[in-house]
Amino acid sequence: MKIENIKPGDIEKRSFEIIQEILGDRKLDPKYEAIIKRCIHTSADFEYADSLYFTEGVVEAIKDALKKGAYIVTDTKMGQAGINKKKLDEMGCKVLSFVSDEDVVKKAKERGVTRSLVAVEKAAKLDKPVIMAVGNAPTALLSIESLYKEGKFKPVAVIAVPVGFVNVIESKERIIDLGVPAIVAKGRKGGSNIAAAIINAIQYNM
Amino acid sequence: MKIENIKPGDIEKRSFEIIQEILGDRKLDPKYEAIIKRCIHTSADFEYADSLYFTEGVVEAIKDALKKGAYIVTDTKMGQAGINKKKLDEMGCKVLSFVSDEDVVKKAKERGVTRSLVAVEKAAKLDKPVIMAVGNAPTALLSIESLYKEGKFKPVAVIAVPVGFVNVIESKERIIDLGVPAIVAKGRKGGSNIAAAIINAIQYNM
Repeated sequence: MKIENIKPGDIEKRSFEIIQEILGDRKLDPKYEAIIKRCIHTSADFEYADSLYFTEGVVEAIKDALKKGAYIVTDTKMGQAGINKKKLDEMGCKVLSFVSDEDVVKKAKERGVTRSLVAVEKAAKLDKPVIMAVGNAPTALLSIESLYKEGKFKPVAVIAVPVGFVNVIESKERIIDLGVPAIVAKGRKGGSNIAAAIINAIQYNM
Repeated sequence: MKIENIKPGDIEKRSFEIIQEILGDRKLDPKYEAIIKRCIHTSADFEYADSLYFTEGVVEAIKDALKKGAYIVTDTKMGQAGINKKKLDEMGCKVLSFVSDEDVVKKAKERGVTRSLVAVEKAAKLDKPVIMAVGNAPTALLSIESLYKEGKFKPVAVIAVPVGFVNVIESKERIIDLGVPAIVAKGRKGGSNIAAAIINAIQYNM
């Protein structure tokens, strides 16, 4: 099969052109277009053109927080690794993941709950605005829901895109019902790569 | 929506049961079933039941190499982060990624090629058996193809699962034509999460 001869720096641009060609006449909301296309780019899955849900003003809220050096907290090391740190560093932002921290692992075991749940409790105690980027654990979303209802956690926004089969659809619907600023991939699909893609799309467009 | 009350340790088991329920009567090759199901588990995408291609004996070859302390080389930090290190450490295996190494970045710039290509050249010089886990860069696969044809690189196996729109389908087909031991996600889909899932599925079943 023929390989297209293309400069490294042009591959991403060409990819987005092909995505647009495949989308054809389909119009995406300009406010969310860059995010939706980057999710498609990272997964080659066009379902994201339909499954992504945005609360009003969420993208601007995230951008404002990033400009002020917010913390992004992911529920996996993989999500953390996938987020581009260059510009975030310049803005004084940090990308954190507590899921493998010794104290988190210990508490989760003692209480018989997931590490993801305990890691959210740790995030809620940070003294900075927090953007939660959840690509893996429904229990992280349920923990956010509880703490938010109890007035103990007010994240700037929740990127709610876990993937999977147990409590995934339900926990995402609960984030939508909660009314917290959120970007949600409805349905079973999502992942740490999608969480990272959403954060990257937002920072690349500011 | 109702949340299923389930112990943390049972979530994965229940997920695989649901995957089997959705697959229904569909029979997967027992040799590859664990790998295919883990790719579905990590993506909620049932296309992997059809798109994964295995060369004869590839899974056993990877297991044998892991037992002897092989190196797994990924083309992204995200793939590296997604691979479970516990058992691999015990077997003396390492999970490496050269794509952000200073020397790789420098050489790629000088030659006007991708970092992924140069990173493969670095992997080819390792003095251990190497399993390539490529979830992102078609150019990594093309580099493997060239070096293999020139007799300069004999990886134990190539996990060829880049995702995307430029040269992705073509580069995977070339790995299939090459005859190197390989696991390939045909088509546009794949990703660092899929590369990690394949390595994890293999190590969890040995």
